[in-house]
Amino acid sequence: MDHPSPVATVRRAVDEFARRFCATDEQWCVALSGGADSLALTAAAARVRPTVALIVDHGLQAGSDSVAATARDHAVALGCVAAQVIRVDIGGRGGPEAAARAARYAALEEARGGAPVLIAHTLDDQAETVLLGLGRGSGARSIAGMLPHDPPWGRPLLGVRRTVTQGACEELGLTPWHDPHNVDPRYTRVRLRNEVLPLLENVLGGGVAEALARTATGLREDTEALDGLAADALATVLRGAGLGAELEVAPLAELPPSIRRRVIRRWLLAGGASDLTDGQIRGVDRLVVDWRGRGGVAVGSTLRNQRLFAERTGGTLVLRVECV
Amino acid sequence: MDHPSPVATVRRAVDEFARRFCATDEQWCVALSGGADSLALTAAAARVRPTVALIVDHGLQAGSDSVAATARDHAVALGCVAAQVIRVDIGGRGGPEAAARAARYAALEEARGGAPVLIAHTLDDQAETVLLGLGRGSGARSIAGMLPHDPPWGRPLLGVRRTVTQGACEELGLTPWHDPHNVDPRYTRVRLRNEVLPLLENVLGGGVAEALARTATGLREDTEALDGLAADALATVLRGAGLGAELEVAPLAELPPSIRRRVIRRWLLAGGASDLTDGQIRGVDRLVVDWRGRGGVAVGSTLRNQRLFAERTGGTLVLRVECV
Repeated sequence: MDHPSPVATVRRAVDEFARRFCATDEQWCVALSGGADSLALTAAAARVRPTVALIVDHGLQAGSDSVAATARDHAVALGCVAAQVIRVDIGGRGGPEAAARAARYAALEEARGGAPVLIAHTLDDQAETVLLGLGRGSGARSIAGMLPHDPPWGRPLLGVRRTVTQGACEELGLTPWHDPHNVDPRYTRVRLRNEVLPLLENVLGGGVAEALARTATGLREDTEALDGLAADALATVLRGAGLGAELEVAPLAELPPSIRRRVIRRWLLAGGASDLTDGQIRGVDRLVVDWRGRGGVAVGSTLRNQRLFAERTGGTLVLRVECV
Repeated sequence: MDHPSPVATVRRAVDEFARRFCATDEQWCVALSGGADSLALTAAAARVRPTVALIVDHGLQAGSDSVAATARDHAVALGCVAAQVIRVDIGGRGGPEAAARAARYAALEEARGGAPVLIAHTLDDQAETVLLGLGRGSGARSIAGMLPHDPPWGRPLLGVRRTVTQGACEELGLTPWHDPHNVDPRYTRVRLRNEVLPLLENVLGGGVAEALARTATGLREDTEALDGLAADALATVLRGAGLGAELEVAPLAELPPSIRRRVIRRWLLAGGASDLTDGQIRGVDRLVVDWRGRGGVAVGSTLRNQRLFAERTGGTLVLRVECV
C-alpha cells in the first residue's frame, strides 16, 4: 500500500487545498508560531506559492521575542518571500485562551494585506475542538469543528495528524519550538489532548481522533444544508422587514423541528439577540408548537442597555425590546 | 425554585411521555431488570396505566433466576396487572453485549402482545450512547442517540439522571438489584460511565452528561429533517424502479452535499447494500462531483454470495451486482 512520507503527506494536503479553494496562484500568508504544525505547513506552502510568514508574538512568555525571531529565520530558510513578526497585546475578555486567540486573529487580519492566511490546525486540533463543543451541548453547530476554508482563513492540515507534522519537521531537519502552554494542564484543551483523548482511544479501541474529525466534517455539512434551508424558509414566514419583522406561526409550525428552530434562531439574531442558548431557542419554539397561552422568552441583546422578549400575539411571533 | 422529589421527577417524565406519545389509556408493558432505573419506571408506569412487567432472564449469571423472581415480586407489589419472567438463550453474534441486547429485544417483542414497551434508559445511558457513537465517526446518525419514541419501544426517562432513579427507589423503600456487569471494566459502556464521563466532567467543568443528551436530541432532529428531504430528493433523481434503479447525476450534483450523500445512501440500501461506511458513501459521492473517469466503489451486500459495485456510466450511477 502507498505509504507516503510525512513531508509528502503535508505537501499533498496543501496541494489539494490549493486546488480546491485557491484558484489563482497569487501570494498567500501562513500563520507561523514556530511549532511543528506551522513549520511543516510553511515548508509545504512556500513550495507552491509566494508565501509570507506572519509570526504573532503574544508577549505572554519570557523569551517570546527570540522564539519569534527563530521562526522568522526558519521561514526565510524555507523559501518564504517575506516573514513578519507582529507583536500584540492581549485583552482580558473571556479568559487567556480566548483573549490570545482573538488578538492573534485580529493581528493576522490586519497584516495579511488581502491575501488568504493558512493556519496549521491539524486533525488532532479538530478532534479536541469537537470534544470542547460536546461540553456545550448546543447540537451540531457546537461540534461541527473548524472549517477547512473560511475566507480569509484556510486550514489545509485538518486531515493530517500531529504526528505527521512532527515527522515532517524531523524529515526536513527542522527543530520546532515546543510551546510550554501545550503541556500546561490549566488549559482545558491541553487536558483534552493529554488525558481525555488517550483514555477514549484506549476505551473505544483506537481511531477516535479520526472519528471525531470525520464527525466534524459530516456535521458541518449537515449544518450548512439545514442553515441554507432555514434561510429560504425564513423568507416565506417573515412579515415585515428590519428589526421589527414578525414571524407567522402557522407556516412555521409546518416545518421540520430542526429547520423551524434554525428559522427562529436566524430571526432572533437578526432582531439583535446575542448569546443565544439551545434552551432559549427551544423556549421560543414552544410558543409555536405548544403555546398554551404562556408568556414570552427573554433573550440577551447585543445592546447593553436593552433586553429582548420573544412573544406570541395570536398567529404571530414578535420580538419586543425593553430598555433597562 | 421548584425542586420536585425523585419520585415526582420520574412520575412527571412518565406522564409527559404518555401525554405526547400514547393517546389511549390502554395497557402498556415495562421492561424490568430489577435495577434502579427500571424499578423506578415500573413504579411510575403502574400508577398511570394497566402495566405488565416483562422480566428478561438472560441466564448469564448464577442466581439470575432469583433476581428475576425478586423483580417479579416488586412488580406485583408496585401494582402491575401482570409480571412475566422470560428466559432467553443468548446467541453469539457481535459480542456478549450485542447478543444479550438482541435476545432481550426479540423476547420483549414476542411477549408484548401488541402493547408498547417502556424501557428505562436514562439521560446517563443516552450520554454513554453518544460517546460510543463518537468512536464510530459516521456523522450525526451515529451520535444521535436513542429515540424517546420508536414504536413499539418507549423511553420516558431519557431526560432523567440515574441519580434520580436511584433516589426514587430509596424514596419508595425499594432495594434495587445491582448488576455486577455494571461495574465490569471489560464492557466498553462501563468504562465510558466510570472512567471517561467523570474525567470529561472534571475537564470541561460539569454538565457533560446533560450536554451529550441535548446533543443527541438536536442531532436526531437534524437527521430526521435531512432524511426526509433526502427521501423527497431521491424520488426526483431516480430513473427506473426496484433493484436496478439508477441515479441521474446532473440533478444529484445540484443538491447540498449532506442531502446528496443521504440520497446515495438510501439508493445503495434499496439496492441491497449492507454495512455501509462513511468512506464508501463519500467514494460514491466523488463519482458524482469529482469523477475524473475513476472506477467504481465496492460495497457489501445483504446477500452472502454477491458483491455490489456502484459505478458511473456517463450521466448515470448504476449498481452492478457481481456473484462471488
